[in-house]
Amino acid sequence: MNCKIINIGNELVEGFIVNTNAQFLAFNLRKLGFLVEKIVEIPDNYFYIKNEISESLGKFNLIFTTGGLGPTSDDITKNVLLEVFGGEFVEDKNVLNDISTFLTNKELIQYNISQAYVPSSATVIRNFWGTAPALMFEKNNTTLIALPGIPYEMKKIFETHIKGFLVKEFHAKELPSKILNFYGIPEAVLSEKLKDFEKKLPETIKIAYLPSPSVLKIRLFSNNCSNDSVVNFINDLSNELVDTFKDYFFGYDNDNLEDVLGKILKNSNSTICTAESCTGGYIAHKITSVAGASQYFKGSIVAYDNEIKTNILKIPPEIIQQYGAVSEITVKLMAENSLKLLNTDYSIAISGIAGPTGGTPTKPVGTAYIAIASKNSVLTKKITGIHLREINIQLFAANAMFFFIKNYESL
Amino acid sequence: MNCKIINIGNELVEGFIVNTNAQFLAFNLRKLGFLVEKIVEIPDNYFYIKNEISESLGKFNLIFTTGGLGPTSDDITKNVLLEVFGGEFVEDKNVLNDISTFLTNKELIQYNISQAYVPSSATVIRNFWGTAPALMFEKNNTTLIALPGIPYEMKKIFETHIKGFLVKEFHAKELPSKILNFYGIPEAVLSEKLKDFEKKLPETIKIAYLPSPSVLKIRLFSNNCSNDSVVNFINDLSNELVDTFKDYFFGYDNDNLEDVLGKILKNSNSTICTAESCTGGYIAHKITSVAGASQYFKGSIVAYDNEIKTNILKIPPEIIQQYGAVSEITVKLMAENSLKLLNTDYSIAISGIAGPTGGTPTKPVGTAYIAIASKNSVLTKKITGIHLREINIQLFAANAMFFFIKNYESL
Repeated sequence: MNCKIINIGNELVEGFIVNTNAQFLAFNLRKLGFLVEKIVEIPDNYFYIKNEISESLGKFNLIFTTGGLGPTSDDITKNVLLEVFGGEFVEDKNVLNDISTFLTNKELIQYNISQAYVPSSATVIRNFWGTAPALMFEKNNTTLIALPGIPYEMKKIFETHIKGFLVKEFHAKELPSKILNFYGIPEAVLSEKLKDFEKKLPETIKIAYLPSPSVLKIRLFSNNCSNDSVVNFINDLSNELVDTFKDYFFGYDNDNLEDVLGKILKNSNSTICTAESCTGGYIAHKITSVAGASQYFKGSIVAYDNEIKTNILKIPPEIIQQYGAVSEITVKLMAENSLKLLNTDYSIAISGIAGPTGGTPTKPVGTAYIAIASKNSVLTKKITGIHLREINIQLFAANAMFFFIKNYESL
Repeated sequence: MNCKIINIGNELVEGFIVNTNAQFLAFNLRKLGFLVEKIVEIPDNYFYIKNEISESLGKFNLIFTTGGLGPTSDDITKNVLLEVFGGEFVEDKNVLNDISTFLTNKELIQYNISQAYVPSSATVIRNFWGTAPALMFEKNNTTLIALPGIPYEMKKIFETHIKGFLVKEFHAKELPSKILNFYGIPEAVLSEKLKDFEKKLPETIKIAYLPSPSVLKIRLFSNNCSNDSVVNFINDLSNELVDTFKDYFFGYDNDNLEDVLGKILKNSNSTICTAESCTGGYIAHKITSVAGASQYFKGSIVAYDNEIKTNILKIPPEIIQQYGAVSEITVKLMAENSLKLLNTDYSIAISGIAGPTGGTPTKPVGTAYIAIASKNSVLTKKITGIHLREINIQLFAANAMFFFIKNYESL
């Protein structure tokens, strides 16, 4: 089953918004076994929309469009659909009713009423979260589903109406897939080591690499086969990879570092705090971005200025003077003292040079020291980032969380 | 000058990542007066890539591709480019040198060395932020520029090498454009109020709305005209809008709240700290994401647990018991006490319920109190978010910074 997504809107081709609709649809279609072969973004232009749709009919089993279904003059997708699929505009009583229900306390203006007019060639898919209904058409063995462009409405309609339809009409079935998350090993190094592993993969199973500044994701999946033997094979391969690269592995699928850290603390009924200099509260932010973090995260001392390091974290000024704020001994004391001060079971401390300035020949931009502590002991590590501030902050935080995940048991 | 963007990567059509590269390129090309007519996302598939590129040559002045230039087996863009544009792979000494410089302290493996081989038909654009060089080709009056897919590398290459090239070779000229950043006014409300304003806009000047959960951007721009009278007209219109909606305005163009806050503190030679509960360090992170923040930001107490509020921020437990941690009196004391503790000129404090749990009938999820303080006085505000944790954290932080920006002079 192949599939195309057409996202319509000037705001897309003019770069004013990031196309999150495409990602949502592609991800969910893929999960259901549809092969998204192409995603296209075009402006609100009659001929561009008509050409894009017309030339795709008969070539794809399924086409999704988003955008251009609103009530204003630049919303022209509905007119194009009428021309391509034929028929005439007819008033849909259900839609009119949905619109007036949605707009409770507001009077229906002409703009709203016009939204209840739909091409007679369309099957209407109702929208309870906005005023533009979704529309479905059939031609040349292609099903086209036109969705509104507002992400929240689009997602609700997909989840409520479309997913079930695809399962029923197209016998859609989830394909097996497993993502392995690694930290601290570059894509080139891992893929070089996996050369032989890749060779022994059967035709039905694929591997994909998804690098980012802080995490390397490896995905094992099948594009065409969901039987038990493929599922088992993917599980076996996944276990083999995790075992071979266990020093770098930290979680499956959507697990990120802060989720894994949270699970460790929840499962051991422990608490944590952070003492941050160069990351400026970013580690605390990542930890608290997980719902339920209040169960294990007590707080943070962001000691950006050395005065805070000495006055609140009680790092002796002589230590900072002799060894520097960016030093092993300083982060060690930051970790130990924050643990006592915030009365937690564990702590993570970091001090480094995010850049763009502040580097020295012996401690260039990108240098940082991490410490993790428990009541019994403390472990430290020196890390090296790059010369970009925004990336360094991410790298430092990820490195610190990964260091904790891999070493908390030794504390 | 028309333009097409082709983003290559299985991770895109499979919905594993959001295509931020397209948005960045579209936005920046647009600023330089290029009309992006189409954005296409396709998988790492030889024939798809070849077809997409081949059929676009001669139809567009400029094509950008991103992705598929990495060292692993699924990166095949370079091979396709060789076939389409001819030549053979030759080793580029500069690129090899750049790669070994980039990978300091790491050994060069075969994969890295292979990245120094480029089609002889290409002009090489060097990459100092990663290992894959960008490549430029010419055919049928089309210039194609192939960029690596890792967003920060792609952006750095564009800003450092490509922008200047476009200005020089294509006589690209920045079209007049002014973005006004507002906070706290919904798009529907502002656009209703701007109905008459929009009517008086001349043909050469357009207005666009770009809403997000925390900031509403209004852009005044021209698509086709860069003469002085248009520039002046845009400036006049911009002044009129800023004046009419001054309560919501905080900055122009790329200015975000943390930049504006930073400038205020720098210009007044003042220091600030934060005391954060529900935002978990996110305000501190935003403030320190600005390079040079150490000049005015001293630190933060992230008091996620009430124990930290009482033990470190010295909020009397009776206050929390009687009024709650999410109350005006609590944030007032958080602001006052953190200011003293961290010895700063100003402080920002916040306590609220980000969700998804923790709401009560009187203080539902999304409720938060903000306080800003100086040595002389303190101001507080109650704010209301929505029911999504990740949006609330952003909204709370933006609201707190905006409250400071608009009211610090009254402190």
